[in-house]
Amino acid sequence: MSKAKIAIFMGSDSDLPIMKGAADFLCEMAIPYEVHISSAHRVPEATAEFAKMAEEKGIEVLIAGAGGAAHLAGVMAAHTILPVIGVPIASGALNGVDALYATVQMPPGIPVATVAVNGAKNAAILAAQILAVKDPAIKENLRSYKEKMAQDVKKKDEKLQKLGITDYLAEKVKK
Amino acid sequence: MSKAKIAIFMGSDSDLPIMKGAADFLCEMAIPYEVHISSAHRVPEATAEFAKMAEEKGIEVLIAGAGGAAHLAGVMAAHTILPVIGVPIASGALNGVDALYATVQMPPGIPVATVAVNGAKNAAILAAQILAVKDPAIKENLRSYKEKMAQDVKKKDEKLQKLGITDYLAEKVKK
Amino acid sequence: MSKAKIAIFMGSDSDLPIMKGAADFLCEMAIPYEVHISSAHRVPEATAEFAKMAEEKGIEVLIAGAGGAAHLAGVMAAHTILPVIGVPIASGALNGVDALYATVQMPPGIPVATVAVNGAKNAAILAAQILAVKDPAIKENLRSYKEKMAQDVKKKDEKLQKLGITDYLAEKVKK
Amino acid sequence: MSKAKIAIFMGSDSDLPIMKGAADFLCEMAIPYEVHISSAHRVPEATAEFAKMAEEKGIEVLIAGAGGAAHLAGVMAAHTILPVIGVPIASGALNGVDALYATVQMPPGIPVATVAVNGAKNAAILAAQILAVKDPAIKENLRSYKEKMAQDVKKKDEKLQKLGITDYLAEKVKK
Amino acid sequence: MSKAKIAIFMGSDSDLPIMKGAADFLCEMAIPYEVHISSAHRVPEATAEFAKMAEEKGIEVLIAGAGGAAHLAGVMAAHTILPVIGVPIASGALNGVDALYATVQMPPGIPVATVAVNGAKNAAILAAQILAVKDPAIKENLRSYKEKMAQDVKKKDEKLQKLGITDYLAEKVKK
Amino acid sequence: MSKAKIAIFMGSDSDLPIMKGAADFLCEMAIPYEVHISSAHRVPEATAEFAKMAEEKGIEVLIAGAGGAAHLAGVMAAHTILPVIGVPIASGALNGVDALYATVQMPPGIPVATVAVNGAKNAAILAAQILAVKDPAIKENLRSYKEKMAQDVKKKDEKLQKLGITDYLAEKVKK
Amino acid sequence: MSKAKIAIFMGSDSDLPIMKGAADFLCEMAIPYEVHISSAHRVPEATAEFAKMAEEKGIEVLIAGAGGAAHLAGVMAAHTILPVIGVPIASGALNGVDALYATVQMPPGIPVATVAVNGAKNAAILAAQILAVKDPAIKENLRSYKEKMAQDVKKKDEKLQKLGITDYLAEKVKK
Amino acid sequence: MSKAKIAIFMGSDSDLPIMKGAADFLCEMAIPYEVHISSAHRVPEATAEFAKMAEEKGIEVLIAGAGGAAHLAGVMAAHTILPVIGVPIASGALNGVDALYATVQMPPGIPVATVAVNGAKNAAILAAQILAVKDPAIKENLRSYKEKMAQDVKKKDEKLQKLGITDYLAEKVKK
Repeated sequence: MSKAKIAIFMGSDSDLPIMKGAADFLCEMAIPYEVHISSAHRVPEATAEFAKMAEEKGIEVLIAGAGGAAHLAGVMAAHTILPVIGVPIASGALNGVDALYATVQMPPGIPVATVAVNGAKNAAILAAQILAVKDPAIKENLRSYKEKMAQDVKKKDEKLQKLGITDYLAEKVKK
Repeated sequence: MSKAKIAIFMGSDSDLPIMKGAADFLCEMAIPYEVHISSAHRVPEATAEFAKMAEEKGIEVLIAGAGGAAHLAGVMAAHTILPVIGVPIASGALNGVDALYATVQMPPGIPVATVAVNGAKNAAILAAQILAVKDPAIKENLRSYKEKMAQDVKKKDEKLQKLGITDYLAEKVKK
Repeated sequence: MSKAKIAIFMGSDSDLPIMKGAADFLCEMAIPYEVHISSAHRVPEATAEFAKMAEEKGIEVLIAGAGGAAHLAGVMAAHTILPVIGVPIASGALNGVDALYATVQMPPGIPVATVAVNGAKNAAILAAQILAVKDPAIKENLRSYKEKMAQDVKKKDEKLQKLGITDYLAEKVKK
Repeated sequence: MSKAKIAIFMGSDSDLPIMKGAADFLCEMAIPYEVHISSAHRVPEATAEFAKMAEEKGIEVLIAGAGGAAHLAGVMAAHTILPVIGVPIASGALNGVDALYATVQMPPGIPVATVAVNGAKNAAILAAQILAVKDPAIKENLRSYKEKMAQDVKKKDEKLQKLGITDYLAEKVKK
Repeated sequence: MSKAKIAIFMGSDSDLPIMKGAADFLCEMAIPYEVHISSAHRVPEATAEFAKMAEEKGIEVLIAGAGGAAHLAGVMAAHTILPVIGVPIASGALNGVDALYATVQMPPGIPVATVAVNGAKNAAILAAQILAVKDPAIKENLRSYKEKMAQDVKKKDEKLQKLGITDYLAEKVKK
Repeated sequence: MSKAKIAIFMGSDSDLPIMKGAADFLCEMAIPYEVHISSAHRVPEATAEFAKMAEEKGIEVLIAGAGGAAHLAGVMAAHTILPVIGVPIASGALNGVDALYATVQMPPGIPVATVAVNGAKNAAILAAQILAVKDPAIKENLRSYKEKMAQDVKKKDEKLQKLGITDYLAEKVKK
Repeated sequence: MSKAKIAIFMGSDSDLPIMKGAADFLCEMAIPYEVHISSAHRVPEATAEFAKMAEEKGIEVLIAGAGGAAHLAGVMAAHTILPVIGVPIASGALNGVDALYATVQMPPGIPVATVAVNGAKNAAILAAQILAVKDPAIKENLRSYKEKMAQDVKKKDEKLQKLGITDYLAEKVKK
Repeated sequence: MSKAKIAIFMGSDSDLPIMKGAADFLCEMAIPYEVHISSAHRVPEATAEFAKMAEEKGIEVLIAGAGGAAHLAGVMAAHTILPVIGVPIASGALNGVDALYATVQMPPGIPVATVAVNGAKNAAILAAQILAVKDPAIKENLRSYKEKMAQDVKKKDEKLQKLGITDYLAEKVKK
């Protein structure tokens, strides 16, 4: 396997079902990545070390997902000049508003590129867009992916025109 | 001056007018403290180092105030087993709700004792209450302080009974 | 059993499944505690009496969990100079935002050390950190606990490296 | 002066400019009242005592205004079966949302009749409506007051029809 | 059956399971009431008529529960000088915050005595407290009810002391 | 089938169960409509084209439902001077507050007529009200519909008077 | 002056500076309108009467602006089948969120076409778009207006290209 | 001047004082950029065209700032595979929460890299971090910038140690 270009971090293994969405997209794009559980609060030194060494290891973009007082992305951004993408994860009573604010409201000087609550897939697409700045092959793949998304929407609309609402919904339920 | 027992941190010198409230209370109680500007994001290593060395230096309670994606208290708590008190500071468009969520919603294992938005004075009172667990002199001072607060409220009520609302407000404006 | 050093209060027995998290941690740390159901609104005098007598009984830290217009921690703090830790509990339609605001936004003079919504375990850890200010044995136990937490995260990360995401999740489901 | 039928409480004299609105309306209605500064947190015993003795003193309705973690109305309601009206007061960074939730979200068994944030005047009108249940003179006064309010709106609309928007606003500014 | 003193309104029959809580309490207190489905938006004239005629019919307090843009209580208050108690009902995506704001934030002149989201029982207790202003029998019943609530909490606490947390929870589940 | 006068758009086929509510009402009113899946983000050009051509095709009102960062209604409004009705759809962690703000807070110049979160049926009623401005038949139908709604509420109230709360609820469950 | 086609209502004359934005746009479009102060709570019968008679008087669209528990638009919608446009107005401590929820979250059957908080101008544009459904002259005017808006943005961009940021801002301040 | 690598867009010239922060940072880093006023709603076709042609023109990252129902960044992202950074701008009554949700909550497939409300400077730093993926000179500049930020914080802390709180604040005011 090639050397990872993107590293995906999450604060807890309970975030893994969400963060898998990022890994799946990178697989589909054939972009090598690594994935780690590493809490900003429980293993702060390992987390800082990961962030500091990432550049040297050849990582080019970091993705960090966390819930609650979601400090992971911000803490990693504090230790690197690589772009850091933050995924606020919905968990607990406040259901992700806490994670969103704790991820996006970074102070001047240390940005975190925040995506939607639970938006792990979009984090991976954004990471690919960043790599595409220098890699025309990824750019081509993103273009195809975008085109395919558009075709999917158009096919759904065509199907809706053909079936009408009731049958469309009935068929959807069957799947 | 005696060796500091409490260390007050803030993420930026724009937080100083608020955090001064904590220092003022500790002065009044004659509890030695030190105060630092140390951002979790701009000087993460110095911040971690402060937190890790605090216990050895004789610090017994940490107070950390920050605004926005307020990670300072949580990051310090990650590096120490001393009690860490967090002061969410209102700043920017979200006006402290972001700082409150980012400070209080810590994951299991790493608590931050959070006080009200901009509640720096209460952070200092809480720190004194913690020290009072082993220091009867501080306990006595807190008791007097609490008694004095109660007397102040009672005096205000007596004055209100004497002056009535209109004159009370008029006199208050004059001050 | 030794005399309780920590008293855990809750406003209703519906809070017990959450507040049990605090008791479990204190058990694990072998810190003696007592636990009470005592509503600030339904038995205000008993609640005030508990808070006022706590110090005399040898209690050193109070933990109070409540939902909705969560006044319990604040009311207890009004009657003691012991540190009071508040646990906002998610219940009803507002799902804990009400309890968080009603617990944390205390006025100057009467702090409540607030932890995350439903964060009973962290309340107990914070209480232990406070006792540790004078008790080196608790300090040692907290250090071990923190170290163990870190090891747990590291083991999970190692397992993830070995199994990959899919197998890790599959194994997690089996448990 | 007649014996007070309504008692107005507030947690701090900073609430007085708002709570004056309640007193002013009761004056206008010639309903005798008393007004007190009495914090649920700083003078909890005096506050409880006030609430417990209110009925015996001839008070029939309590009005309590407070900001932040606004416990005053709830604490008074815990100590009496008289109707308690709560006025959430906007103060500090959360600007009254905290006070609203802390006042209105009372647990089953102990209601607080909550009015709008800073709605002290409406608290007094509600108190008068409650007294009117047994006092036909107050009922008559409320009817006149309501009629006058309606006339005022109608006069403003007539003036607007006569002057048009621009002149109406110009005249309003002059006042 | 005696003539109703309290009228309970709700905007939709989907609110009935919640509003039943008010009726149940009034039953328990033997206070005669009537209950109606009457939407402020779908049958505005009937609703206005009910409110206008309530006084004449002998009704002394109105209770109105509604969800979403909950106008029912405010609209009824516009047509009467009787006290109107509003119950915001959680429904739909905003889950009661919308109903709370739409019920409590009434303009000066037209108060609605608002209770907690879904707090129908408290609305009935408040209504009883209002009637108690002139009815010593209801006052006595409220006093007993309050005493019984306190005894219930104390019994739960005693049981908790006897059983401990684990057995208490086990027994609770069995019920 | 007659030429569509109203076009219903949605950003994803996951919105179809909600948006069906709009189609059902238009059916009931015999107002011809068409319905499309067309994402502002995935097929921006098709969406713009639809909006631009709508007028020419004889469409008189557009309805657009979307969740999350719900841009669909706003984007369509940017490309037409036909009235555009926006339906914020609850989806994901923020449960519709995001969609509401993203739909309603349009800048000066480009209004979107926003209805309640998930309020697809009301979007259709509003569309019918708009067509009724020039079509007396639709006006008549709306009048009947409104009258029928009122009768339904009145019948429910009558049934409640007859059955009482318990039997009413029992019968409702049976359905 | 021609007979009004649009009626603008507001709950209080304090809303007039905002609602003037609607009147100004209608003037500019030469669409005849009338404007009224008419509170849903203080003059409920006049308000209902206005709404009921609007259609007969020749009004084709209603615009209603209100703050706080903003019931005005909903109450008017209850009494007419004309389209009703609601303008939530920011006022008081909750600053318009209350008015937004109270305006937009209408129950099925009675829509209010809600625009942005303080969005009176957009309410008027929407009203014009509705009239344009049958009036080609208004349609033409809206098209020109939209074109002019686009030209304005383009001119600003051209000016920015010419002046650069600093000079653009300097010139803007001078105006 | 070199060909722009970054394009900064804003929805209105009222956003320019905030968005200038992005331009200033790019100047300081000597990264060529262009800046445009281009509303997603008022000039949708020009905006789409800009986004579609950006890649061909040599632009590598887009920055888009907007307030209210902030669709600009999302709309541009719909038309390009370049990374798009969104800056939610605080404006109007909802003060940026609307813009934050409308920018960050993008659907799967079309990410917007969102920074803090009003965080234009961080948008530019993030853009520079993205370019640095392929440009070692920018990487070096970012490293120096980060180091300088750290030194600034350290100098402030040293000054605070030297002056104490009171003199530090006095000196700060003088500037």
